[in-house]
Amino acid sequence: MIKKIDHIGVAVLDADRALATFRDALGLRLDQIEEIPSQGLVAYHLEVGESHLELLHPMEEDSVIGKYLAKKGPGVHHVALQVDDIIAERDRLEAAGFEPLSPEPFKGAHGKLVLFFHPRTTGGMLLEICQIANEQEPMDSEDKT
Amino acid sequence: MIKKIDHIGVAVLDADRALATFRDALGLRLDQIEEIPSQGLVAYHLEVGESHLELLHPMEEDSVIGKYLAKKGPGVHHVALQVDDIIAERDRLEAAGFEPLSPEPFKGAHGKLVLFFHPRTTGGMLLEICQIANEQEPMDSEDKT
Repeated sequence: MIKKIDHIGVAVLDADRALATFRDALGLRLDQIEEIPSQGLVAYHLEVGESHLELLHPMEEDSVIGKYLAKKGPGVHHVALQVDDIIAERDRLEAAGFEPLSPEPFKGAHGKLVLFFHPRTTGGMLLEICQIANEQEPMDSEDKT
Repeated sequence: MIKKIDHIGVAVLDADRALATFRDALGLRLDQIEEIPSQGLVAYHLEVGESHLELLHPMEEDSVIGKYLAKKGPGVHHVALQVDDIIAERDRLEAAGFEPLSPEPFKGAHGKLVLFFHPRTTGGMLLEICQIANEQEPMDSEDKT
């Protein structure tokens, strides 16, 4: 089941300028700054209602976000919906024709389990589903359950 | 003050296919279908938590969404943040360098007062602020207050 918009991921070229826009001008609270070396990015989590804007700043040009910025410039990169059971949702959405970008969910920002679907199967947007970590055992202990 | 993500506007080429994706596959509730002739579009409001996905389907090629689709294809068109006082927010954001696309808010989907800001001043995303209508007198009675 889809619970809410977890966050909107926004690719940013200049982190200081993006913080001036989203934190200082819009007045959103900066919840957390998180380095995610596995994805080559720093995520700035800004609270807005029950959701977040997640500013995504590349640590290197060759990262996913670095390449995205080079091609498309700054702006909305993905939309993330929070689900209660990511495995059940993956199976359900895959059966409905959504194409996952990886076979299994993996650990993303905020320690959540995340899975992306290809935009060509989701109405043109890069769609993430995510589940807060303590609602399910982590992937690496899956064999034991 | 920013209250929440009001909605994410998604430009769609094929309304039936978009409903199959967002309503049937994702399981979001279709709250309302709204024709907005002044903007040449039909909006499909799908509930997700405290927010909505707003599927925007052009009634004619020459509309804003029709032109957007021709240029960029389907996907996220804008992000709308709900505010408590749209005039105060417009003034505050304009002072911070955000460039409004119209001098005054106007009536948009759901009868809300809406105002857009140019993406080049908002981190690359087309940003809307909106206020639910009954929180302020409509624009056309502004002179009387």
